[in-house]
Amino acid sequence: MIQDTIAAISTPMGEGGIAVIRISGDEAVAAADRIFFGKSELGVVPSHTVHYGFIKHPLTLERVDEVLVTVMKAPKSFTMEDVVEISCHGGFISVKKVLDLLLEQQVRLAEPGEFTKRAYLNGRIDLSQAEAVIDLIRAKSDRAHRIALKQAEGSLSTNIKLLRHNLVELMAHIEVNIDYPEHDVEEMTNAFITNSCTQALGKIEQLLNTANQGKILREGIVTAIIGKPNVGKSSLMNTLAQENRAIVTEIPGTTRDVIEEFVTVNGIPLKLLDTAGIRETSDIVERIGVEKSKGALADADLILLVFNGSEKLESDELSLIEQLKDKQTIVIVNKLDLPQQIENDILAGHFPAERIVMMSLLEQQGIADLEKAIASLFFSGQVELNDQTYVSNVRHIALLKKAKIAIDDAFEAAGAGVPIDLIQIDIRNAWEYLGEIIGDSVGESLIDQIFSQFCLGK
Amino acid sequence: MIQDTIAAISTPMGEGGIAVIRISGDEAVAAADRIFFGKSELGVVPSHTVHYGFIKHPLTLERVDEVLVTVMKAPKSFTMEDVVEISCHGGFISVKKVLDLLLEQQVRLAEPGEFTKRAYLNGRIDLSQAEAVIDLIRAKSDRAHRIALKQAEGSLSTNIKLLRHNLVELMAHIEVNIDYPEHDVEEMTNAFITNSCTQALGKIEQLLNTANQGKILREGIVTAIIGKPNVGKSSLMNTLAQENRAIVTEIPGTTRDVIEEFVTVNGIPLKLLDTAGIRETSDIVERIGVEKSKGALADADLILLVFNGSEKLESDELSLIEQLKDKQTIVIVNKLDLPQQIENDILAGHFPAERIVMMSLLEQQGIADLEKAIASLFFSGQVELNDQTYVSNVRHIALLKKAKIAIDDAFEAAGAGVPIDLIQIDIRNAWEYLGEIIGDSVGESLIDQIFSQFCLGK
Repeated sequence: MIQDTIAAISTPMGEGGIAVIRISGDEAVAAADRIFFGKSELGVVPSHTVHYGFIKHPLTLERVDEVLVTVMKAPKSFTMEDVVEISCHGGFISVKKVLDLLLEQQVRLAEPGEFTKRAYLNGRIDLSQAEAVIDLIRAKSDRAHRIALKQAEGSLSTNIKLLRHNLVELMAHIEVNIDYPEHDVEEMTNAFITNSCTQALGKIEQLLNTANQGKILREGIVTAIIGKPNVGKSSLMNTLAQENRAIVTEIPGTTRDVIEEFVTVNGIPLKLLDTAGIRETSDIVERIGVEKSKGALADADLILLVFNGSEKLESDELSLIEQLKDKQTIVIVNKLDLPQQIENDILAGHFPAERIVMMSLLEQQGIADLEKAIASLFFSGQVELNDQTYVSNVRHIALLKKAKIAIDDAFEAAGAGVPIDLIQIDIRNAWEYLGEIIGDSVGESLIDQIFSQFCLGK
Repeated sequence: MIQDTIAAISTPMGEGGIAVIRISGDEAVAAADRIFFGKSELGVVPSHTVHYGFIKHPLTLERVDEVLVTVMKAPKSFTMEDVVEISCHGGFISVKKVLDLLLEQQVRLAEPGEFTKRAYLNGRIDLSQAEAVIDLIRAKSDRAHRIALKQAEGSLSTNIKLLRHNLVELMAHIEVNIDYPEHDVEEMTNAFITNSCTQALGKIEQLLNTANQGKILREGIVTAIIGKPNVGKSSLMNTLAQENRAIVTEIPGTTRDVIEEFVTVNGIPLKLLDTAGIRETSDIVERIGVEKSKGALADADLILLVFNGSEKLESDELSLIEQLKDKQTIVIVNKLDLPQQIENDILAGHFPAERIVMMSLLEQQGIADLEKAIASLFFSGQVELNDQTYVSNVRHIALLKKAKIAIDDAFEAAGAGVPIDLIQIDIRNAWEYLGEIIGDSVGESLIDQIFSQFCLGK
């Protein structure tokens, strides 16, 4: 396949020691060689070697940067094409000047995700693996990272391929019966169909069972912290953020507002409604009943409803309890260090005991209980990942559900004695839905859409 | 020299395709090898080769990331020590997990600038070259980048070394006379001293002459945009920012507030007083005479004073003209597209013609004139860099000035017939000041201070 040659900055923009420009395509080595001046010509160096030298303007010979250049020849590269990586000085100017020079050498700027797209189009990875690459980069917690890494290594693909293989066998079996109906093995075939469908359904359900947890671990639990002023909402935020501090503080130049959205509670990622949102929810309590509050609460997967245990419940709070009792709510009774005034019986009348957590954020008490409550709400208490494949991508989940419905239909049709050539259509649909997960039967527009979510330079 | 082994993330934190961890020191290869699982053992691969594989926990063998690892053996590396670079998936988690694993392998986290510091301590580059590395990364304009690159290549060092060499010869000459006064060549010596000093002074002055421009190109001209509301201050900001847009838009996740401080006008970097500052300056006009305004204007190297040409000058504006006439001010008469009402004679009575620019920001007229006016104010009209060495670092400028004073003293002392052993002290001082520029005679605390300004991972 002849592809044009693409280049992009593959490291995040910002002040840093190193910035990397990646080039991929038939002209990658030649283009880099025109602007690289070192001991060796890049055209003749062995694959997977690194070379020190300067990037210079090919005509004026003005020096642009001091660099290390890595040459990786097809097919042993990320894209399976010739790949050159130029490691420049970090910052904004060096990398931009080098990229600008490259773009004058019959190289065009890569679209977001285009390197990974080529890895997929050239057959090195399938679509679900390609999608895992961006999940790896975006992962906000260790567990999300582990799920993505497993998927990138092809664990989901293996499961899907096995499922499809079994469906193909089933289809072949049916085909024989359609082509040679005189053999009159129809009853046997129906039994074979229902049997095969049951097996396939079992496998699909097994995958879908991981979807809820997988999706949560990938995307985080959208969480709203609600409560009247001064009950400890900010302290709770800070306490939750603390576990994650190692990551937060290592991001220079990133505003706290953006980062604080994600906190990790014992490995469970919470996506806190943004700071503005939280400010808003505190306003909400002040004007309970306002229409606006309903929208904000509707967005949340989890509501942390905070009370001051040293005070009696106010009427505003009572109506909040009424409003939230049927939601995924965890009640936090804070300020356990002070003499308690709160009517615990009212809380117990509205929420099950395991969803009421007594805390003193001041004295850092009750945090483990909160973690346990969240884990029991979303993971039936069991957060540890086992070696299972987790389905975490909404696109994959939707396709698995469609495949499940198609096989369900086939199963019932077989039981009802529907002609096998009609059943065959359901099976084929299921096979195609599953194929879309690994990119076996997908249109170009879907591919474009998937890769457009990537960042530049990957 | 036995050094411990250090590691750090060398790319900016953020979502990106690639993140690079750099390791340097005697244990770099062994440490990387313990967590790297590929086809080859890193201990036996040739220098400057790249290897595909996985980072795994050395005990549990849990996969942490899919990586490319580059091995560069001493002394042909950035630090002149064994260096390993691990190229991981971008984002926050992969790189953090790999770094955490490394830090369990007898590797410690590098301090900011520590890789460059080792390059300096191991003698690959001198101190002024090391300082240029951080200037390269921080460069905000092409010209600042070119100055830094030239300095990184050692152009300033070459000049300083030559100067010092001449001073050493002079000192040797004087030494002979001190040791063998009976030769009675004192008069000849004094002539020799004044002659040598004149030459040295010429060279130092030549370098200092570039300092003003060099410093401006490195740090930007601190610029305040002043004017009453609706004269076009924001349009001017936007117009100035436009030239720089290519850089601005390529920085995802960076707030506009931070970036808009820097704009480039025909290669001249303006550091605009931050957005809050500009809002403030517009308030200033509304309350002219308020003490506060003086502080804000005092900080600026350049004031862009904007008027609406279609209106008569108001009394507030007249007092502003009075206040700013002796400052580095360029007057912008905007809205040239409308019928003009402004009293140009008043402006002409207070500002030289080349500092008054007629513009229509709406129709993008007069921008070239503004550029010319700025250039003539700061670069005597000549902004094009020639091949000269530019001194841009305040530390270097201060040391050059000290050296100049010392040599001036020696020159005058020689003329006044002061004993040559006293003159020798001045010469030696000058020689030492110059040595501090390239790091020949500097204390550890200064070195620590210089490298602490670096970013992590360089």
